[in-house]
Amino acid sequence: MADFEVLRALARPNGTKVVLLVMDGVGGLPLTPDGQTELEAANTPNMDRLAREGSTGLHIPIALGVSPGSGPAHLALFSYNPVQYEVGRGVLEALGIGFDLRPNDLAARGNFCTVDENGLIVDRRAGRIPTEECVRLTKKLQEATRVDGVEHFVLPVKEHRFVLILRGEGLSEHLTETDPLVTGKPPLPVRPTDDSPEAKRTAALVNDWIAQARAALKDEPRANCLNLRGWGKDPRLPQFPDIYQVKAGAIAVYPMYRGVARLVGMELLEHGGDIEDEFAALNAHWDAYDFFFLHVKPTDSRGEDGNFEAKVQVIERVDRLIPDLMALNPDVVLITGDHSTPAALRSHSWHPVPFLLWSKNAMPDAAQSFGERECAKGIYSLIPATELVPLMMGHAGRLSRFGA
Amino acid sequence: MADFEVLRALARPNGTKVVLLVMDGVGGLPLTPDGQTELEAANTPNMDRLAREGSTGLHIPIALGVSPGSGPAHLALFSYNPVQYEVGRGVLEALGIGFDLRPNDLAARGNFCTVDENGLIVDRRAGRIPTEECVRLTKKLQEATRVDGVEHFVLPVKEHRFVLILRGEGLSEHLTETDPLVTGKPPLPVRPTDDSPEAKRTAALVNDWIAQARAALKDEPRANCLNLRGWGKDPRLPQFPDIYQVKAGAIAVYPMYRGVARLVGMELLEHGGDIEDEFAALNAHWDAYDFFFLHVKPTDSRGEDGNFEAKVQVIERVDRLIPDLMALNPDVVLITGDHSTPAALRSHSWHPVPFLLWSKNAMPDAAQSFGERECAKGIYSLIPATELVPLMMGHAGRLSRFGA
Repeated sequence: MADFEVLRALARPNGTKVVLLVMDGVGGLPLTPDGQTELEAANTPNMDRLAREGSTGLHIPIALGVSPGSGPAHLALFSYNPVQYEVGRGVLEALGIGFDLRPNDLAARGNFCTVDENGLIVDRRAGRIPTEECVRLTKKLQEATRVDGVEHFVLPVKEHRFVLILRGEGLSEHLTETDPLVTGKPPLPVRPTDDSPEAKRTAALVNDWIAQARAALKDEPRANCLNLRGWGKDPRLPQFPDIYQVKAGAIAVYPMYRGVARLVGMELLEHGGDIEDEFAALNAHWDAYDFFFLHVKPTDSRGEDGNFEAKVQVIERVDRLIPDLMALNPDVVLITGDHSTPAALRSHSWHPVPFLLWSKNAMPDAAQSFGERECAKGIYSLIPATELVPLMMGHAGRLSRFGA
Repeated sequence: MADFEVLRALARPNGTKVVLLVMDGVGGLPLTPDGQTELEAANTPNMDRLAREGSTGLHIPIALGVSPGSGPAHLALFSYNPVQYEVGRGVLEALGIGFDLRPNDLAARGNFCTVDENGLIVDRRAGRIPTEECVRLTKKLQEATRVDGVEHFVLPVKEHRFVLILRGEGLSEHLTETDPLVTGKPPLPVRPTDDSPEAKRTAALVNDWIAQARAALKDEPRANCLNLRGWGKDPRLPQFPDIYQVKAGAIAVYPMYRGVARLVGMELLEHGGDIEDEFAALNAHWDAYDFFFLHVKPTDSRGEDGNFEAKVQVIERVDRLIPDLMALNPDVVLITGDHSTPAALRSHSWHPVPFLLWSKNAMPDAAQSFGERECAKGIYSLIPATELVPLMMGHAGRLSRFGA
């Protein structure tokens, strides 16, 4: 695993340009035993050339057999051990809706649920109310509740899901969750999980808020109750620009990826919103940054849809933009996914993810194109995702010699 | 390495059937530089098909360059880091003879030796007395000795080797060994290795037992003395069924493998004793378990004999049973060895061990048959043995997503 203490001691600025291009969920599977994966089926002459000229391999996002969520998978790509650097679900959810999370903010995921006349949960998802309902209900809760000495934000996510954020001094994330995880039981009270006065006080504030919220919801036909889970605060991660001595810019559309990039200290670069716009942003900001993270979402979305052909088309669309990237004369380009999302499985999966590392000093290996099975022939074989950034920095000449 | 805390949090039951088939010591070496290994030479159309349809790789049982004993090699296959989860040699020896080791039992390996008239060791193995002699001597010691307030068992293993088990409350395994490891010196007294009263008391009990035993042996022509080594108790390992949320059944003939399987919480499934019977047991217990460990011993035995051709025949005999296994419609099948036992070396070796992972959602890779050099082309390249079970559980859909 990437050792930040070692890397921080070796890192030195040198003016090189380094690009991490992530096609979310790009790894796939063939639809038939002798078929091709999405990436293998896609016509990608530009990426194939980079794979031939550069080095290749497969990476393991979290651990063998483990399917990653997007948050930890990106932390791993940014070289943070995702088991060591855990980010609370509440924080990821808040980042996912683009909330400007501040260092003291305490965030939780909320789920609306349905309880019967005895207060027992009969539907943990409140019949998956439509998102417009969620918008109305969170507005209602925002107005009907208050927390003593603390600012609060109740914000919709999707269907029955919302976020609660408490902003104030001395709030603790060491709290239990309210969801009993089964129907037929009442929501649990929030309890402190340590002995600190902060946790005790926060638990009391939250239980009081829940009582107010339940009073406000009591006449709702479906969403007449709620659960709170995944308490978290900004984890104060070691900052990427400090470790690697780079000015790092992130180009992404979805709030979650922008949020995780910001958590590690990357600056968000604005753009029009399409993949083509993201590549244009690279061009626009080329001189001002050393390290670029460019995130392409639709590969994952089409994989989740189970739409093999549409995922192929997204990959081909990215491939057509590679010449624009290479025209900028980058020193190091790494192209990969954060995890696999095979259309065949319609979800994130545990399969190793292909990567290509292009640089003038990269060792060309046996891979003749960019795909899972070609990258399996690569010189880097199978390595943890956390090693990719150090490898890029090495190729960029940004890591000085270890020892005399 | 497999992180039990993470895996335990992700594991969920889902009704899938997962089979780990271990051909003990299956990894081999060619007899001539351009020859084939045992596995490559064997005619294995069924395993070859599974290798083509599934994913392959090589695993490292303990560490590169390290030849494993059977105990640690199986712990590693079961995903237990064998360096972290050390099981005392005494415990493995006791399990190896099928002794029903209880939580408080203290076990040691014993070696009969020969001392001269001054009490100096002249033969550390007592001339490798025949096993019948060992049986007679252990019976003699069982009857001639007693330990204050503690039940004792003196049991034969093979030739000069035996096991001593002490059963009672408050016994400690923190003891030194008596074997000076060279001839010309006397056996050492047992000393406590920590300051606990338990270790002090146990050392005194054991030294007293040794004195009684030496008195009983003093007129034996060869085995007139003994050494005790490898003190150990049941290591109370985290339980496999708890970690992975599976009901796990073990099908094995030899006591050692049955013992290690039981140490991790697998249930022992009875069978007739031949390889064919073991596969029949799989069929008989198919509905009652989620995870099956099936152990085939003779591959290792024939390797230890240096009998290349006989080892090939055992592999072919297993291959003929694969259709029976596949007829059960398993979700995930992993076939491998616990280590290599090349007939060319007549012993366990440090060489990486080939594995094939078959599942409907496994990525077919470059391997066209099941063998060391084909598996080296596999998508999983070279991974620690401890990662295999998580990988199987991932393919079985038994690990939920890590993070949001």
